[in-house]
Parts: sequence; C-alpha cells; structure tokens
Amino acid sequence: MMRFNFVLLLLISATIINAQKIMGFNDANAKTQLDWEKKYDAQLNSKNLDGWMQFLSSHPHHVGSPQDKANAEYMANLFRSWGYQTEIAEYYVLFPTPKVRVVELLGSKPYKAKLEEPALKEDRTSGQKAEQLPSYNAYSADGDVTADLVFVNRGIPADYEELEKMGIDVKGKIVIAKYGGSWRGIKPKVAYEHGAVGCIIYSDPEDDGYGAGDVYPEGAFRPKDGVQRGSVMDMPVAPGDPLTPGIGATKDAKRLDIKDAPTIMKIPVLPISYEDALPLLQSLSGAVVPASWRGGLPITYHVGPGKDKVHLKLQFNWDIKPLYDVIAKLPGSDLPDEWIIRGNHHDGWVNGAEDPLSGMVAELEEARVIGEMVKKGFKLKRTLVFCAWDGEEPALLGSTEWAEDHQEELRKKAVAYINTDGNSRGFIGAAGSHTLEPFFNEIADAVIDPQTGVTIKERRYANAVVNADKTARIKLIGNKNIKLGALGAGSDWSGFLQFLGIASINLGFGGEGNGGQYHSIYDSYDNFIRFMDPGFEYGVALSKTAGRTTMRLANADVLPIDFNSFYKTVNDYVSELKTLLDNTRAETEQENKMIDDKLFDLAKDPKKGFQSPKPKDAVPYLNFSDLENSMIQLKNQAEEFQKSYGNGINLSPEKQKELNEILFKVERSLINEKGLPRRSWYKHQIYAPGFYTGYGVKTLPGIREGIEERHWKEAQDNIQIVSKTIEVYTTQIKEATTIVKPKAF
Amino acid sequence: MMRFNFVLLLLISATIINAQKIMGFNDANAKTQLDWEKKYDAQLNSKNLDGWMQFLSSHPHHVGSPQDKANAEYMANLFRSWGYQTEIAEYYVLFPTPKVRVVELLGSKPYKAKLEEPALKEDRTSGQKAEQLPSYNAYSADGDVTADLVFVNRGIPADYEELEKMGIDVKGKIVIAKYGGSWRGIKPKVAYEHGAVGCIIYSDPEDDGYGAGDVYPEGAFRPKDGVQRGSVMDMPVAPGDPLTPGIGATKDAKRLDIKDAPTIMKIPVLPISYEDALPLLQSLSGAVVPASWRGGLPITYHVGPGKDKVHLKLQFNWDIKPLYDVIAKLPGSDLPDEWIIRGNHHDGWVNGAEDPLSGMVAELEEARVIGEMVKKGFKLKRTLVFCAWDGEEPALLGSTEWAEDHQEELRKKAVAYINTDGNSRGFIGAAGSHTLEPFFNEIADAVIDPQTGVTIKERRYANAVVNADKTARIKLIGNKNIKLGALGAGSDWSGFLQFLGIASINLGFGGEGNGGQYHSIYDSYDNFIRFMDPGFEYGVALSKTAGRTTMRLANADVLPIDFNSFYKTVNDYVSELKTLLDNTRAETEQENKMIDDKLFDLAKDPKKGFQSPKPKDAVPYLNFSDLENSMIQLKNQAEEFQKSYGNGINLSPEKQKELNEILFKVERSLINEKGLPRRSWYKHQIYAPGFYTGYGVKTLPGIREGIEERHWKEAQDNIQIVSKTIEVYTTQIKEATTIVKPKAF
Repeated sequence: MMRFNFVLLLLISATIINAQKIMGFNDANAKTQLDWEKKYDAQLNSKNLDGWMQFLSSHPHHVGSPQDKANAEYMANLFRSWGYQTEIAEYYVLFPTPKVRVVELLGSKPYKAKLEEPALKEDRTSGQKAEQLPSYNAYSADGDVTADLVFVNRGIPADYEELEKMGIDVKGKIVIAKYGGSWRGIKPKVAYEHGAVGCIIYSDPEDDGYGAGDVYPEGAFRPKDGVQRGSVMDMPVAPGDPLTPGIGATKDAKRLDIKDAPTIMKIPVLPISYEDALPLLQSLSGAVVPASWRGGLPITYHVGPGKDKVHLKLQFNWDIKPLYDVIAKLPGSDLPDEWIIRGNHHDGWVNGAEDPLSGMVAELEEARVIGEMVKKGFKLKRTLVFCAWDGEEPALLGSTEWAEDHQEELRKKAVAYINTDGNSRGFIGAAGSHTLEPFFNEIADAVIDPQTGVTIKERRYANAVVNADKTARIKLIGNKNIKLGALGAGSDWSGFLQFLGIASINLGFGGEGNGGQYHSIYDSYDNFIRFMDPGFEYGVALSKTAGRTTMRLANADVLPIDFNSFYKTVNDYVSELKTLLDNTRAETEQENKMIDDKLFDLAKDPKKGFQSPKPKDAVPYLNFSDLENSMIQLKNQAEEFQKSYGNGINLSPEKQKELNEILFKVERSLINEKGLPRRSWYKHQIYAPGFYTGYGVKTLPGIREGIEERHWKEAQDNIQIVSKTIEVYTTQIKEATTIVKPKAF
Repeated sequence: MMRFNFVLLLLISATIINAQKIMGFNDANAKTQLDWEKKYDAQLNSKNLDGWMQFLSSHPHHVGSPQDKANAEYMANLFRSWGYQTEIAEYYVLFPTPKVRVVELLGSKPYKAKLEEPALKEDRTSGQKAEQLPSYNAYSADGDVTADLVFVNRGIPADYEELEKMGIDVKGKIVIAKYGGSWRGIKPKVAYEHGAVGCIIYSDPEDDGYGAGDVYPEGAFRPKDGVQRGSVMDMPVAPGDPLTPGIGATKDAKRLDIKDAPTIMKIPVLPISYEDALPLLQSLSGAVVPASWRGGLPITYHVGPGKDKVHLKLQFNWDIKPLYDVIAKLPGSDLPDEWIIRGNHHDGWVNGAEDPLSGMVAELEEARVIGEMVKKGFKLKRTLVFCAWDGEEPALLGSTEWAEDHQEELRKKAVAYINTDGNSRGFIGAAGSHTLEPFFNEIADAVIDPQTGVTIKERRYANAVVNADKTARIKLIGNKNIKLGALGAGSDWSGFLQFLGIASINLGFGGEGNGGQYHSIYDSYDNFIRFMDPGFEYGVALSKTAGRTTMRLANADVLPIDFNSFYKTVNDYVSELKTLLDNTRAETEQENKMIDDKLFDLAKDPKKGFQSPKPKDAVPYLNFSDLENSMIQLKNQAEEFQKSYGNGINLSPEKQKELNEILFKVERSLINEKGLPRRSWYKHQIYAPGFYTGYGVKTLPGIREGIEERHWKEAQDNIQIVSKTIEVYTTQIKEATTIVKPKAF
C-alpha cells in the first residue's frame, strides 16, 4: 500500500508540473486555457445530448424531408441562443428518390423481393412508414433489365480476376455483391466497367447480421429484413452535387444536364436484405465460390448463373432538393480572419440516431458550453465556425457545396477542420493531417475514459496491444503514441482537405457499441440508448476531445503544427511504395514464370473448367531519386524548424501572426490544382480516397494508384509531381524557420 | 514445334540414361527391376479395383458384422489364388456397440434428436438399415445425464482458456463441440478433464456440409442428417484393444476388467448431425462466441448455457468381438527373414467405400500383379507381407494386436511398413520415416499422374506452389523435393512405427476428391464413383506408387536409407523447439507484463463480465547442449556414411546382409522401452501423436509436449533422453559406415 501511494503521489506531482505546458501556448496562456478546459468539462451535460437526439431523431430527416429543415432551424436557434452569429446556407442539389423498385427471380420458383423493413414494437420510430425513404442506392441509374445473375463476392477488381479464372464473364448480366470490402459505390462502378447491366448489393448475415451477434431487437445486429441504404455516386471522382462539380450549387449556379453528369452511376443498383437475397443466391448454379467468398447464409454459395433470370427495374424522381447547412460563427477577438471549423452532418438516411446525430449532439454541447464560457469571460483568439451539414449521406453535399462556394475565403482563412460523424462506445479513433499528430496526442492525454478512469490514450493503447497479433504486438508495446490514420473518403472533410488543402482531423469513439443498424430504419434513438452509448457518456467524452481540439487551435499562440510527424509519415509512405513496386515486380516475374512452367495448368482440377491466369506486363524500375532527395530536404528543414518551434511563443504578436499564417497555409501547398489523374477534383497529393476502394485511403495517391493499376508512366510522372510538391512545402517550412530561429550573432 | 520436339527428345534421352540408376540397386539389378516395373504398370487394371470395391462395399462391414468376416475370407481367397501363403489372424477385442442413444433438449421448446441418416434413392446401399451401425462414438462411457449445455468450439485446451476468460466453467455440464481442429477423442477427454459430465460432437456445415460445397446426393458434401461416427478411445495413450495393452488380444490373453481399462472414455459422448445440433445451439444464451468459433448455421452462436437443460443417455453392448486380419506372405528368395510389410485396413464404419476400401483395392491389385509376375519369373529377394487389417476404425485394433502379438518376430525381421488408408483424386501425399525421403522421391519421379501426364512429383509441386501464400511460395519455388510429413496417429502404422520402431510410410492421393461422406452411411460405392475417383485412375496410380515402394524395398541390394535426410529433419525439429521455448518465454514475459500493467482490464468491455488472464509461471532456460552435441555427431556420421553409401552395391552378399540388417534395425534404436511421459506404449522418440491433438503429430514429443504443457523438468529430462537416443543411433550409422567405407591403405 505504501509503495502504491508513493507512486501515485509521484504521478500526481508529475502531472501538476507538466500541466502548465501545452503545445503552442506560453505558460501564462496555457494556465488560463487549462483552467477554462476544467470549467468546460464540468459544464458538459449528457442530458442535453440525450434530449437533442430525441428531438432530432424523432422523424426521418433525409434531404428534402420536413424534419431535415426543421432540424436545421432547431439547431440554428440553439446556436443563436448561445451567442453565435448563425445562418442557414441553402444549396440546391440533384437528389434522386425512388419511384419504382422491383427485384424478382423469374422461372419455375419465382420470388419477388419484399424490399421492406418492418416496424417493430420495440422501436418506436420504426413505424413511421409514410415519412421513411424506401431502401435504395442514391444516384443509381434508372433501368429495367432482365438477365442472368452472377455472384461477384464483394464486387471489387480482385474478385473479377478470380471470376475470370473460373471462366465467368458478367457482360450483359446482373451482378449480386455482398456489402463490405469497399465503399458500396465501387461495386456497381466495377460491375459496369466489366459490362454488367445491373447490380444488387445485399447485407450478408456474416458481416453485420446473426453472424456478428444477436439481431435487432434482441441484440444490436441487422435483422433479416434490414437494408443498408446509401449512395453509389462515383464519389472517388468527385463528391458534392453531380450537376455543379467544383462550384457551389447556389440557386442560379450553372448546372450540367443530368445525362452529362460524370458521377451518376450508369447502371441500376439496389440494396436488399439477406432475406431477399437468399432465394436469388439459392437459384445460382455453376462453380462453388472460393472459401473466402462464402457468407453466412445456410446455402452453398455458387458464382452462377442459374437457370432462371432476374428482373431488376428501378425508376427515380430526379428532383432538385434544397440543402440546409447551419453555419454558426463566434468571431475571434485577436485573429478573426483565422477560422477553426468544426462540423458534423445532420441529415440521416432515416431517423439517423447513431449516424449522424450521436456526433451532432456532441458538437452542439461543445458549442453550448463554449458559448456560455465566452459570456463569462473566456476569450477566443481565432474565429470558431460550428457547422451542421446537410446532405452528407447522398454525396457529402452540404459540406462540399459550402466549401466550393466559399473556396476563396476558406483558402485565406481556414486554419483547420475538425470533423465527427456519429459516435459510439469504446476507444478513440483519430485520422487526419499528420502535422497535427503530437497536438492530438496531447489532447488524448488530457481526456479521461468514462468507463475505466484512465486517459483515452491509455485505454486505446491497452486495446491495441491486447488485440494485436503476436507480431504486431511486439511493435506496439511501449509505444503509446496515437498514430493518426490517413483520411480517405467517408465524411465531410473531403471539401476541406482534399479540395482546398485545409488541415483536417476526424474523431470518434467506437469498438464497443457495434451493431447492424447502419443506414436502416433501425438506426433509432431506441436502438442507440440500448446498444450504442447508453447514458451518452462517450458523447460527452467526444465533446471533451473535439472541444479541446477546437479551443486549443483557437487560442494557441503558435499553431501546434509538427513537421517531423509529417515527414516521418510521408517517408514511410515512400518506403511503402518502393516496396510495393519491388514486390509487384517480384510477384509478376514469379507468376509469369509459373505460367511459363505450366504450374497453373498442372495444379488445377481438370474436372473444373478453370482458366489459368494470363501473363502480366513486366514491372519497370522507376526513378524515385528526385522524391528521395526532396524528402531529405524536408527532413532537414522539418528538424530545424521543430528545434526552434518553442521560440515561437515568445515572439511579438506580429511575428506570431506571420508565422501562424505560414503554418496553417502550408497544407495548401500539398494541393496541385490539376488534381489527380482522371479526377481533377481531388487535389491533395498526400491523401485521397482510393479510386477502387472508396472509403479506403490511398496515400501518395498519384504514385500508388499508378503502380497498383500498372500505369507505369503515370506513376513516374507523379513521382516528379509529388517531389516538386514536397519541395514547395519545404520552402514554406524554411520561411517559418527564419521566423522562429534565433538570429546568429 | 521444332523446339518443343527437341526438348522432348532431350528429356527422353535423359530418362533413358538415368533410368538405369535406382537407389540401392547395382546397374544390372536396376535394369531388371525397371523392366519388371514396366510390366507391372501395364498389368494394373482399374476394372479390378472397381469390381472388388463393389463386392467389399456391398454391405456394412464393421467389426463383428457378417460382411466383415466375409470380406476377410474373400480377400484371403484372392491372395491365395495369386500364390500367397495366406492366413486369417484372429483376435478378440472389446468392441462396444450402441443399445440406447438419447439426446434431447428439455424445457418449453423440447427437441429430441433424430440420430438417423435417411436412405437416399441415389445411393443404393444407404437403405441397408438393419445392417448399419447406428451413429455413435465407440468407447464412449455408458451414462445418463441431464445438465446445462455449453458450446466449447472445437473442444481443445485453447478453447477452454477462452471460456475461462468469458467466465464459463463446464463443471457438471454437457459440452457440445464442433468436429475438426483435433482428433475427435481429444474433445471428450479435455471436457472430462474440465469436469464436464457429457459430450456431444456435431459436424458443422461450414466444415464439410453446405459451407464446403453442394451436399449429397447433389454434391459430395455432408447432408443435414449426415453423422460422423468414430472412436473416442484415448488412443494418444495407447491404441489397440483396451483390455490387452501391449500384448496380442488372443483368445486366452490376460485381460483387464473393463472398469480398469485406462483408454476407455470416462463420460458419455455422441456424434450428431447439424440438423440435430441446430435446436441445441439455438437454445444457448450467454456470451456471443469469438468470431473464429462461429460455424455455418444460420444463428448467432452463443457459449451458453441456456435456460433449458439437455438430456444425454447412452448405453452400449460391451461385447468381445472377433477380428479377422488377412496376412498374405510371399517369401523372399534370398532374404526370407527380411520382411516388407504392406497394409490397409478392410473394416469400415458402414459401407466404407472411400475409407478404407479405395486403398484396400489398390493394395489387392498390387498383390495380384506381383503374384502374377512372380509366377512369370519376377524374383523378390525379401519377403512381402500383404495385410488387410480389421478393426482399424475403432482403435487400430487389427494392426496393433498383430504387431503386439508378433513383436519379437517383427523386431527381428521387419524392414519397413507401407500403409495406405483410402484414396481419392489429386495430389500425392506422403508421410513417414525421414530416412526414406530420397527413396520416396525417386518413386514419385517414376509415377505418372493420370490426369496431366506429368509425374506425380511435378503435379504435387505445381499444386504446392500455386496454392502457397506469397511468403511460403518464395521458399517452395524451385524446390521439388517432396518433404515427407511426420507420422502422428490416424491409421495402422502406430503399432509398427511408434511401438516397435519399424520405418514406416503412409501414402495416398487427395485434394480433388473432397466430400463430406466421412464415417457416414453415404461413404458408398455410388458416392465414390461420382465424386472421389471416377474410373479408379488414382487407385491405379496408388498401386503404382505403393507397389514400387514395396518392390524396390524388397529387391534393393542395399536398403535405400538416407541418414542426411533424417539428420536435417530432426535438426529442424531441434531448432523449432529452441524457438518454441524462446517464444514461449517472450510471450509469457510479455503477457505477464500486460497483466501487471492492467492492459487486459483496460481493454475489455466493462459491460461484458469477462475475466482477464492470470499470470503464468516464468519460462526457464533449458540446457540443449547435450542434444546439440549429439546432433553434430549425427550430422558428421550421416555425411560420412552417405559419401560411401554407393559402395554398398559392390559388396559381397554377406557384407550386404550385414549392412542391411543395420540399416533396417537402426530405426529400432529410436525406441525407448520406457515410452513417453504418461504413455509408455508410445516408445518412438522422434514421432508420436499429440497427447492433446490426436492425429496431429508431435515430433520430439517428450521435449515438445514438456514445453507446450509447461512441464519444464520433464522437457529437460527428455532433452537428455533424446540426446542419448541420437548417440546410440549414431553408433549404428558408424557401424554401417565401417562396412561401406573403402579401407584406407
């Protein structure tokens, strides 16, 4: 006991001594800031989150619904009541909704898909049938096709390589794919590229139904009729209104014809439940699927086709609908033209309790308490912009249109964008610009996990170590630093980070509140308070985490930017790419040799009509030297800057302003105005969603996708582009260094 | 075309030039042998295999059945007709058969298991209900228990560690386990060790039912009512008649009381179908199982217990039944007291077409053609002993009793034992004593795959490379050598290899004739000729492979033993064990540190009542030096012998006899008469079945299981024992070396 208390005492003293330091703050300002943070924490009230979620999720609130507009107005009034300069920014976007939905199996054992999620007495909002959007994939094409059905696993490019070996071609056929393994829009896109005329996507019970846990309402997972709605717009090409790419969809914006919109899917696509999928999959014959393709239905999965055809008929209302973005500003006292932007979307596919409201209500509570504190004397140097985005679900519409509409102003003023999009229980997840990594780690050291009483960083670390496999564990153990993930696609940061080059971070808790309610009518308040975050404890933890992030960015004397982290991360990406290229070369050589040696012919079962793979083109060596040289420059300059970074807090306000302007605009230099190959909207040279993964990030995307897709010249060209980008970036750091570096005698 | 023909010509010439060489034969004898092998191949006739299988599988032929005896007599007559001195060796063994079988779920939704495999019109023998053994596990205890049910995944020790973390104790409960992941007898044994009072084993559809492929009779896989019969005797302790361990179960042998027999299972055990398992598993509540425990049933798997109890009642007829081993000898012309033994069992659980008859009929055809050739002048130096074992299915009864009964004679005369146990289509599989590895590779170079026209070695290589993951592929590519597997348990070699120290090898084709008929009434002729080896092409290939193995061993001037292969293999095992110990130490330290640091407490979901693991005892360093030193001696001696091995073919017959006697008896020196810890029947120091895996081999078992089970002193003691064993073994090689080594001037 003695010993334990002694250690505890030491820890407490250490905390007190260190508590005075925050990255980018001088000691006096740090003390003030930490005092206010203590008050902030004390005022956060989970009952507010609960009450707001009850109201906001009380009716379906998708784009164009009465509740969508009502929610925007409700929140705008809240922000106003807390002292924010609040407006509702309206945009007008193409948002198709279903008119006709038919999926049927023809032939001797016909089946007509129900396409209906039933009301449950245990879920009070599930019966709001008249207000619910039917289950569908937004931006599917209209279509009426009858064709053979083929099962394509997850429907990603690798699955089609496997199908080719099995001698299966999807040309002229309808494909059925499992949800998962990629962002959903990849499935119809790749199907279309292979000549399919329609696409059905279903939720396999292995993924989020009974295979994962007890189904709703007994448990949290997807019941047999549950359907995942969602967009299939080609967002890896560009998010936002498909008729106004690159510009704000204001009332009188110049619009494309629907037929010319490049991101609208070219074939009809519909999501269905596993109950509706079962007869379709059972009708398939042909080869048995590879073991890794199997799902959780009690059947033998075949690739098909079967003897019976499938009829898929879809028609949509191609209407222009209004968006209501709530924009609430609290102008900074010293630096009103430096903006810290905090956002979460407010539209849902149906009642949307977890997605997005659990994050939205945390943001509201942040805004409320900050507003109250400002009234009591809390000073904010920079301007806070709290945003509640509309239309995230269909295509990140609200955030993208606002970012496009305000691009000039944002380029000048935006310091950083902090995003959340829903929240549940468990462990902090964080991804974003790597210059923010040490800054975020400091915040994770300051927030206490509500279930265990240790910091959210400690708990995240424990979970990572315990659940790592043996090899990974060795690397993890002792290393508590939270490595930020890289941002691909999936929520409202794209317009800020990837279109405009504004440093961004996305935050959320998860891992213990898992379920299968995603994008169904069962993502309800009743579900959320039973299975996701009962008591809104983690909602409050999110308010603490995101609130600190916002407030410290708003008040830092010198913005908490770390170039060493950026360098190390990008350098790891460069190493990855060199390894990727080498491995691709070795594997290509090996596989071509195996083809030459007829090993595939000899290994295959002659009783199955499988094809051996075709030889691939040889992989050239690429010249990485320019990039490697610019990385060395970056390394040296980053180290030099960070050595003197601490001096920044002692500079004059004028010098600090000059320094900060470089620090927040440096991320802009990662933007190349020409954009990435085949998708000019995405301009960030370090982070992009994968062209063939969607959610999944591709870092150094121009080079990486060139290698992955075997466009060797493109890969080489992009090595040069990135190399130049890094050079310009390094110049900015050099400029910042001259400000902070002590002058030589 | 020109080029191709040229290459072909080169290959043919190379074959002609090399064809004269066979390991252990002088050139003249090699030529004669190869000429006869050509004639042998030409005379093999798939129609014989087909006809014999039809007869032998025409009725159920388990131990004690009329067809079992009839088959023995039928085969004895065949052997006699081909010129073999044939006898039927009879033994009398305890063989329990079911009298009462009840499994029922009690409570509000009661279910009584059907325990019945229905007849199918597509399978002509499936309706022989009166003759079929009901589905059961032989050597289960009698019992009548009503208790809570707990799902224990595969029922192996690691699963109970997982259950402990979930706070689940099986004491006083009935467990239900999936087939697979271990030999079946491990499941009730481990359940009993943990205090369970009953055990139910079921075939999960993911493993060999609809998850693996279309079910019978549409496809080859296990239908919903199919049940895997099988023994649960504690064979890792000792196989054979449980009442006569270590001695032949002759009519008047001294027998233990049943209650004293150590290898009879202590709790009731019954196998059931997945249709019968479904209501039992559905009744379970409690925690959802870890993801890797899930099976293919359309439910959420829980560990249980549920609110309703299960009733398991089993009674058996504990009868002594006769065994009929067919023993057919062809005395050797020169060395009649050197025996080459070739065996396959003939008893089946029901009609047993694939298991065991597909191997049995291949052996019969080998015996027929060799017999015919001998009549036409083919000379066999050594004695061939063809065996058709009875009672393999219950506990390797026939082979074990015969080996125990003839142990003195076999120790003197047995050169090698060649086993098969069923056969299907695809790729050669081979496991056995590693002194035989180069010899077997030579045979695999000489047999042509019936489907592709390349050698069975080439095809096996192609399959291994194509199906390897990327890391394994790098090691495999270019290395066509067939690495023999090590023999654990699973068929009739145990009495020869592990009890007596007779070099053994087990052969069979597989990989393309997979199905779910194993140990069910559907392992029938009708099934076999549709899904396993239509046309018996691979049956003939097996006759070619095993026949060559037998004939070359019978006629070699110098036995084809290679000590380098033995050394390399055992040395790899030693390295594995050192790594195992080091890894166990590192993992123990790491996990204990993680427990100390409370990482498990912090990582777990407080809403689930899971337990954190308990600290483990520290792992000591063990002294491997004696073993390492004896391995160096072995290495040097093995290399020296193999350098001069080629001289052996020029020695006088007397010298050759002296040499050969050392070469075949050297495997005896791997026997330690005291046996392995806690199981004295198993005496081989290099190969044994795992105490907790059953089929799965444990190499250097005394040391390895000491480490795995954390008996550190036992591990250290066994390092010394193996070290001494290797020393003695090396002395034998030294003696052999003095015979072959050219005398120095």
